[in-house]
Amino acid sequence: MSLSTPAYAAHNSTDPLVPWTFDRRDPKPNDVLIDILYCGVCHSDLHQVRDEWGGSKYPMVPGHEIIGTVTAVGSAVTKWKAGDTVGVGVFVDSCRICPNCLAGEQQYCDAGMSGTYNSFEQDKVTPTYGGYSTRITVDENYVVSIPEGISLEGAAPLLCAGITTYSPLRHWKIGPGMTVAVVGLGGLGHMGVKFAKAMGAHVTVLSSSDKKREDSARLGADDYLDMSQVDVFKNNAKRFDFILDTVSAAHSYQDYLGLLKLNGTMCLVGLPPKAEIEAFPLVGRRRSLSGSMIGGIAETQEMLDFCGKHGIAADVEVISIDYINEAYERMLKSDVRYRFVIDIASLK
Amino acid sequence: MSLSTPAYAAHNSTDPLVPWTFDRRDPKPNDVLIDILYCGVCHSDLHQVRDEWGGSKYPMVPGHEIIGTVTAVGSAVTKWKAGDTVGVGVFVDSCRICPNCLAGEQQYCDAGMSGTYNSFEQDKVTPTYGGYSTRITVDENYVVSIPEGISLEGAAPLLCAGITTYSPLRHWKIGPGMTVAVVGLGGLGHMGVKFAKAMGAHVTVLSSSDKKREDSARLGADDYLDMSQVDVFKNNAKRFDFILDTVSAAHSYQDYLGLLKLNGTMCLVGLPPKAEIEAFPLVGRRRSLSGSMIGGIAETQEMLDFCGKHGIAADVEVISIDYINEAYERMLKSDVRYRFVIDIASLK
Repeated sequence: MSLSTPAYAAHNSTDPLVPWTFDRRDPKPNDVLIDILYCGVCHSDLHQVRDEWGGSKYPMVPGHEIIGTVTAVGSAVTKWKAGDTVGVGVFVDSCRICPNCLAGEQQYCDAGMSGTYNSFEQDKVTPTYGGYSTRITVDENYVVSIPEGISLEGAAPLLCAGITTYSPLRHWKIGPGMTVAVVGLGGLGHMGVKFAKAMGAHVTVLSSSDKKREDSARLGADDYLDMSQVDVFKNNAKRFDFILDTVSAAHSYQDYLGLLKLNGTMCLVGLPPKAEIEAFPLVGRRRSLSGSMIGGIAETQEMLDFCGKHGIAADVEVISIDYINEAYERMLKSDVRYRFVIDIASLK
Repeated sequence: MSLSTPAYAAHNSTDPLVPWTFDRRDPKPNDVLIDILYCGVCHSDLHQVRDEWGGSKYPMVPGHEIIGTVTAVGSAVTKWKAGDTVGVGVFVDSCRICPNCLAGEQQYCDAGMSGTYNSFEQDKVTPTYGGYSTRITVDENYVVSIPEGISLEGAAPLLCAGITTYSPLRHWKIGPGMTVAVVGLGGLGHMGVKFAKAMGAHVTVLSSSDKKREDSARLGADDYLDMSQVDVFKNNAKRFDFILDTVSAAHSYQDYLGLLKLNGTMCLVGLPPKAEIEAFPLVGRRRSLSGSMIGGIAETQEMLDFCGKHGIAADVEVISIDYINEAYERMLKSDVRYRFVIDIASLK
């Protein structure tokens, strides 16, 4: 059959995204074909469209927060059947044989995972195209199930913003009795607040102004600090067990490290530019500056099940595909609470 | 009684150390009086003598790697008796009531530990004087026991260089099957090699030249990398579970972080000047840049017992006290394998 697929694509790093049509592959024995319903808009889409990380491949169909319905399955597929509501996240394949893949940490694949777009399949030749499109063909092992009880548009950002914040909170064993700070209340941060709270921690939002104080409380945070205030770093020294730092803009790690208790960890989930760091805040309280990147397939499923159980989804603004370029401009100004999600019906 | 005590002291940040005499306090009910036999020479002695960290107090009697014999005990002392061979390390008191003290981590005392010299007793008024002296009066709870079977001169550096490297290896649960790298083969590094090896790890020394290759093998290291070689960082990427970084000179953390496996930790135990760090090496493999500072009293005792059991002591060059200024100059050139230790008999 022909899998001609309408999409929106960038053709270079400067022009707006425009309609483009390409062919998806026919399902191989282990593939599922997914009719896409919603796709979240991640800040990394914009970075890659504009080639801000280098090496972008065009034409590029962005989108790695995909929700859809299975419409066909390959002959060997056992995990899925037509009609299933499923998700696809940041990668669609990995080498499957390196120690990290074998440990279920495919996001750290030593051979390099196949990103859902702006990347290659494991043959290192076939380009991948993402979720700003009407359908996608994916190996069944890189698909997750969407639980009942959460909205499908709110579920889309869970595939990247959700797992990116859930995974480090689990890795560092966040739970009752612990004090967690979330730096930055955006697409990632608002999910971090919801997850840390649902895991039983005392949650404080650290923001660069007072503007999001009310929203922070509505999202469930116990406390809020406007970090532009005088002495706020000094007055909150040695307060937190864990800091989830979701900020991608340049900022000092130094001051934030001082907010950690003995043995505390500050975990970066954004990719800010390089910054200076002094040894003493680390040495003087055995603190750690760490980082974390999305999560493996099994953990992504665990996160989705956790969301179903706790009624957690992202706060989203649903848009039509022809609004995508304007959405990028608003995202640059942090003018979204908290994630744009494309209704892919607008592409059909 | 009068406790007039011969010592060597710095009177300012530029002149050599010279003989100086001061009074130790009479033992209070919980004190022990110790006749000092050996005192190690730590690089931090030189930093503080020369006021390189700021705030130095003069006259300063350096020395926090003290080995001696108990000669008298206060009326309430139960832990020690005259004749015991004991040690005193980097601190002689702490607040005893903060969460870190209560957890036995007195080195991270929130009120500030009383350093063995260039510091104050907990009254924040009475200056402390260190081990370049013939005796010291110390609260019984801040004294440790020296096990039989290791040389007393070789035991002295265990009180700082030893616990500084032992504690992070224990904290990060180093053991069989793990790959450990030790950056820098000096006073700290040579102890790190001995401990990591005794704990069962595969140990590699990372050095800035090829000069210490033979010594590294003699100390028990399994492998040695000359980091000045082309492509050495690239060829050893993702190799180690843990890096113990003992270097105090300025260096890039960036390249070393790339040597860590998934979830690996690089722990600083020196205090190098500030350096730039990129987020990606942390985020891309969930690595951590951490730090650690000496150890608590109970852990110091545990380390000494471990040394007794495994026959571990520092490799030292014993000197007379009147050689101390020359020893400092040689230490600056790393011309010591691997720690100077003062024979305090030369002061008596």
